[in-house]
Amino acid sequence: MSKVRKPPVVDEAVAALDIGGTKTAAALVTRQGEVIHRATAPTPGRAGATAILDTAADLVDRLRARATGTRVRAVGVGSAGVIDHRTGLVLSATDALAGWAGTDLRRRLRELLDLPVTVINDVHAHALGETRHGVAAGHQTTLFLAVGTGIGASFVVDGTVLAGAHSAAGHAGHQPSPYAGQLPCTCGGQGHLEAIASGPGLAQEYARRTGEPVDDLRSVAARAADGDATAREVVLLGGAAVGSAVGGLVNMLDPAAVVIGGGVAGLGDLWWQALRDAVRRETLPSLVDVPVLASTLGSDAPLLGAASLAWEGTA
Amino acid sequence: MSKVRKPPVVDEAVAALDIGGTKTAAALVTRQGEVIHRATAPTPGRAGATAILDTAADLVDRLRARATGTRVRAVGVGSAGVIDHRTGLVLSATDALAGWAGTDLRRRLRELLDLPVTVINDVHAHALGETRHGVAAGHQTTLFLAVGTGIGASFVVDGTVLAGAHSAAGHAGHQPSPYAGQLPCTCGGQGHLEAIASGPGLAQEYARRTGEPVDDLRSVAARAADGDATAREVVLLGGAAVGSAVGGLVNMLDPAAVVIGGGVAGLGDLWWQALRDAVRRETLPSLVDVPVLASTLGSDAPLLGAASLAWEGTA
Repeated sequence: MSKVRKPPVVDEAVAALDIGGTKTAAALVTRQGEVIHRATAPTPGRAGATAILDTAADLVDRLRARATGTRVRAVGVGSAGVIDHRTGLVLSATDALAGWAGTDLRRRLRELLDLPVTVINDVHAHALGETRHGVAAGHQTTLFLAVGTGIGASFVVDGTVLAGAHSAAGHAGHQPSPYAGQLPCTCGGQGHLEAIASGPGLAQEYARRTGEPVDDLRSVAARAADGDATAREVVLLGGAAVGSAVGGLVNMLDPAAVVIGGGVAGLGDLWWQALRDAVRRETLPSLVDVPVLASTLGSDAPLLGAASLAWEGTA
Repeated sequence: MSKVRKPPVVDEAVAALDIGGTKTAAALVTRQGEVIHRATAPTPGRAGATAILDTAADLVDRLRARATGTRVRAVGVGSAGVIDHRTGLVLSATDALAGWAGTDLRRRLRELLDLPVTVINDVHAHALGETRHGVAAGHQTTLFLAVGTGIGASFVVDGTVLAGAHSAAGHAGHQPSPYAGQLPCTCGGQGHLEAIASGPGLAQEYARRTGEPVDDLRSVAARAADGDATAREVVLLGGAAVGSAVGGLVNMLDPAAVVIGGGVAGLGDLWWQALRDAVRRETLPSLVDVPVLASTLGSDAPLLGAASLAWEGTA
């Protein structure tokens, strides 16, 4: 792929959007899951829903302008927040996306772009991307975990995301974790996995242990790489906490494969080894061989997942 | 129903079997889920698979002999152990059922009874019974937990059990629980929910706290009813531990309803109140209203669930 300088000219494509708290990414994607054009822009998260939607629509228009000769059939959106894929509404969202909750995402993008629109939560989109075109392809059921600023999950069965009765499935970060003690969680609860094992959770744990505030997890990772013993302990703790939760979920759901992505999963071997050890410790003997895989599509995964839903809508 | 002395004469029925570690129950069940005849026998768990199968087949024959005029169309079996509903094999089983692992349950019962046989794990059968004819009827997705000697679960989506890639889904007792500390678990792991919140787990916890061994959970329950403060604490602990795990699973799976059954769920209001409080504490604000219901069909539930699968097979 990297040798192809000029994007291929294709007859038809769908537009995929990944609307996150800081960045909005867009791509034109073929039915086979090939990305032929990309564009990104900062998400105007503080400026309200109209600004967020305009930014997303502008990105798609830019791609359409570039891809003359390609008919764009539909738009697939993966968005941060709790998204009702049936009604197209944003049910709730973090503070990073002001005014996003309550937005009729599907209708408003359809009006802006005059194309059919399908919408889904971004973690589910990521899972679908890996299931249909990535490391989980060929597995009938996949448990996907995104470990980053938050910890989200998606359980994909026979190619379909189990979105839940209130579109809220996948809040794997909000389960009790023996590693979290009584730490307060962003959800208002305490002792949840996300409170200790998310990026901010680990950064805060490092600060608690050393009395030294750090900007974010990258600082901790850099110190761990430099041999800082406490930083290494915190990275190991994060991997073990996630692995322990994954093991419990494997025992409950018996997925054919587990896929783990998100920024924290980029911490490297130390984190991964602690995670794998914990999964093995927690998992029933009959399930210890369930593969635990690293997400391979990176930031393309949600785009490819959203695109695959858009293609389904055109069928 | 209790006023009907004579069982109704029906044209056709299926035979349902619930093969447990101590007891095997059988029933003839109509397509509408009405039980028209019942029989039970002790499971000869120490005597090997042939004895267990013979006992089960004898029960069905007894029912057939009683129900002259009723054509028995098929047999549905819910059995303890990990059951592969696709191949009909018992993949693994507890020590209470000697030689059960490896048994070709479906084929051998078919040979003994000369009827089509469908098989499934007993917890899944219980969940199906409640979903199709019990307290979960009408809910599109149900998370069922059976809290007894072990802790098993079943996630039913659109009327179908998610049995897992290795037929091992539902091992909810084998997830890390902050209530379990480092307690050894029956699976070989430690710190699992089952180690603290199962019937034996709670009895052992009472013994640890008082230095006084107790026969089983019933003794603890009796002491709690008599006002024994430690017994009450242990019952509350059990409810809270299960509730905490249920809350985490609700956040992950977003089921339309939760149903809880099993012997420990018979501990009464003290246990249930601790469970409900813990679910509420653990659950995301948008999911606190997910109903948490007590199983209502009791020992009929697995029979009705197994029967419903048998009926499906006749369609």
